[in-house]
Amino acid sequence: MADVRARIASRACPPGTRLPSVRAQAQAMKLSVSTVLEAYERLSAEGVLTSRRGAGFYVAGTVAPLALAAIGPKLDREVDPLWVSRQSLETDDATLKPGCGWMPTSWMYEEGVRRALRAAARADGSELTEYGPPLGLPSLRQHLSRRLAANGIDAPPAQIMLTDSGTQAIDLICRFLLEPGDTVLVDDPCYFNFHALLKAHRVTAIGVPYTPTGPDVEAFRAALEAHRPRLYITNSGIHNPTGAVLSPVVAHRVLKLAEGHGLTIVEDDIFADFESAPAPRLAAFDGLERVIHIGSFSKSISASMRCGFIAARADWMEALTDLKIATTFGGGRLAASIMLSVLTDSGYRRHMEAVRQRLAEHTATTIARLKPLGITPWLVPQAGMFLWCRLPTGVEAAPVARRCLQDGVVLAPGDAFSLSRSAGNFLRFNVAQTDDARIFTVLSRALAQAG
Amino acid sequence: MADVRARIASRACPPGTRLPSVRAQAQAMKLSVSTVLEAYERLSAEGVLTSRRGAGFYVAGTVAPLALAAIGPKLDREVDPLWVSRQSLETDDATLKPGCGWMPTSWMYEEGVRRALRAAARADGSELTEYGPPLGLPSLRQHLSRRLAANGIDAPPAQIMLTDSGTQAIDLICRFLLEPGDTVLVDDPCYFNFHALLKAHRVTAIGVPYTPTGPDVEAFRAALEAHRPRLYITNSGIHNPTGAVLSPVVAHRVLKLAEGHGLTIVEDDIFADFESAPAPRLAAFDGLERVIHIGSFSKSISASMRCGFIAARADWMEALTDLKIATTFGGGRLAASIMLSVLTDSGYRRHMEAVRQRLAEHTATTIARLKPLGITPWLVPQAGMFLWCRLPTGVEAAPVARRCLQDGVVLAPGDAFSLSRSAGNFLRFNVAQTDDARIFTVLSRALAQAG
Repeated sequence: MADVRARIASRACPPGTRLPSVRAQAQAMKLSVSTVLEAYERLSAEGVLTSRRGAGFYVAGTVAPLALAAIGPKLDREVDPLWVSRQSLETDDATLKPGCGWMPTSWMYEEGVRRALRAAARADGSELTEYGPPLGLPSLRQHLSRRLAANGIDAPPAQIMLTDSGTQAIDLICRFLLEPGDTVLVDDPCYFNFHALLKAHRVTAIGVPYTPTGPDVEAFRAALEAHRPRLYITNSGIHNPTGAVLSPVVAHRVLKLAEGHGLTIVEDDIFADFESAPAPRLAAFDGLERVIHIGSFSKSISASMRCGFIAARADWMEALTDLKIATTFGGGRLAASIMLSVLTDSGYRRHMEAVRQRLAEHTATTIARLKPLGITPWLVPQAGMFLWCRLPTGVEAAPVARRCLQDGVVLAPGDAFSLSRSAGNFLRFNVAQTDDARIFTVLSRALAQAG
Repeated sequence: MADVRARIASRACPPGTRLPSVRAQAQAMKLSVSTVLEAYERLSAEGVLTSRRGAGFYVAGTVAPLALAAIGPKLDREVDPLWVSRQSLETDDATLKPGCGWMPTSWMYEEGVRRALRAAARADGSELTEYGPPLGLPSLRQHLSRRLAANGIDAPPAQIMLTDSGTQAIDLICRFLLEPGDTVLVDDPCYFNFHALLKAHRVTAIGVPYTPTGPDVEAFRAALEAHRPRLYITNSGIHNPTGAVLSPVVAHRVLKLAEGHGLTIVEDDIFADFESAPAPRLAAFDGLERVIHIGSFSKSISASMRCGFIAARADWMEALTDLKIATTFGGGRLAASIMLSVLTDSGYRRHMEAVRQRLAEHTATTIARLKPLGITPWLVPQAGMFLWCRLPTGVEAAPVARRCLQDGVVLAPGDAFSLSRSAGNFLRFNVAQTDDARIFTVLSRALAQAG
């Protein structure tokens, strides 16, 4: 019985496997036929096996499905990427969310989205009901091509494919380039959902320390040599969670190292529209040779309509399109069309200017409000909504986050972003979500309890 | 040189691999150091290797990405699922598409979709710009729960998760339950994109012949015993491409066999709203124990807004949600809200009644128009848009499809749906797409050339 159980647990005998006949098993194990038969029948009574008349005994049950929560080290809920994502996504208007990764509704370009929806309601019928073409709405791809050119990225529309989101864009690239067991570099800290996404691909993520000007080049080199990764996923513009910006020198060095090691880089540029001065883009330096550039409109226009894109080398577009169709069929044509309406609306540019101004003001205010609590920014970001902050010495962010959550304040503790769990006394603040004074009262109380 | 090349081609030495030193290699191959060095340098000059000063020689280049088109047997374009999908998705209004899998815009509930969009333009701001909750819009999940109950499927809202499409729903389930190398049963013939999707998961698809009342039970049993599949993917309601309907007896037998073999079944119910009399559902018989029920609104409401759903056993919902968030983050809240508006619009029910009536009429007309061409239906379907037809004896569908495409008519040749390529003289017609008389003229001419 123990032998059969062990083989089932190790998945050497998956469900549906026919076990050796009683006679064969008895012979192999040098046991009597009746002993083996009794063992099989007891296991059948327990539901481990099923027997079919005249056909022998089979392994019962269903296969253990892929549970991301069971992969990797067991983490405290507060720093578990899966739980942090869920916590932000649960809609409860009473909760304050200084830890969440997007702006409140009141900061978004609501009137522009409404206008685009009204226009969509009058659109051609095919736009309302039919699948989009394989690469996605041509007019949005043309528009994106021009936008990318403004950032020095040369991507003709034929090298741009629309996806259903930025996350789906990275997911598609992972499917395209990775095999289970491969290694992928990420920044430490980085956007926490990268950790969850890479788990889903059953690859090993390795963190490279992030500095105020990009990844630590020496650590990057050492990681390339030690782990031979296939992919590096990063943000060049406004880095999540630190708000740092890649410097041209680091961009150059990273690309040189990547070239030497046959490494492909995914540059997630989701915060492009929040920049006050454009940061160097790896895709611009590289010319989309080994850099895949992705983006979406979830942070700037709407996360409620799903639309993202991939810009990649020409010879990869066919296979990427096949993979997209196989796994999602046609893309969301209407969402693409609404994004295009908003992007080309004259009010959008003005709106984003106002948002950038407002974010700059809120960054200053939030820093000032955190100071009396002994919370200091690692870096004062040039732009964006994120403030990566150090707590007073010796204070751990996870228990602080737990206490604040009890009082209805969702924080983002540093270790959720850190593969090495070396950001235990950091918190990421979203300055667009810190208007309510209660956040600072609750936080202050939680810190006092921690001290 | 040949030795190094072979190791690279076999992926034994992936890009970035450091080759043995010149000295070690010379010793191992019993060659002089200078011979090995020359070989390495020539390979470097060719770009196969790169050398780094003081650090030796490395395999250059990027990894071969996943090209679905390169997996499996090389097929004629006309019967290649990837190509057939693309062909239908390319938007060109001049093309006639009797082979396509959806209704023309003019048959869709356009006014209802427009009304829903206008309502959406007046919705609460958070609905327009924020991510949806992890499982998806609660009110749509409640509505779906009631709809499923009407078909005998007991799925409380907590067991329903929204996805971005029906295809994405199946894709998520494949990720959840399959590992590369697993085996999956599909119907032969079946919806061709299942073949492409399973390729993307690097699993082996095995076809089970489909009969007018469901899968051939004896072949199903034999496939279970021979291949120990993890999953079976099927349509119970209106089967694509045959239009057949599962019988209660076959449903019972399939479920009994599945139980005995620990098999999970995905029931894709995308055509539910087209049924005139409800077909037996595997999920209803089984009670969502080993059946996962999925659906979407692409065929009935809109394919331009992406929304689908999964109904599955309660203890799988957590892990499925984690997987969805990791790979797509929040779902499309606005699409879900628009689907709900349309589904609960009093006009929708009347519209679908009219569509069903119109499809029944067009089924009769199309059969009558195909008859003089010697094309006969395998089965006269009770409902739906598909007509699975046999060509005159000896006529192959693929070359006919090729000729018709030259004349601007896209057909769906049988072997695109058949894993065993045993449907070479079948075509699938969509009766909603056969109004234009030119289709029959073009087809007649192509058949005459084939004869």
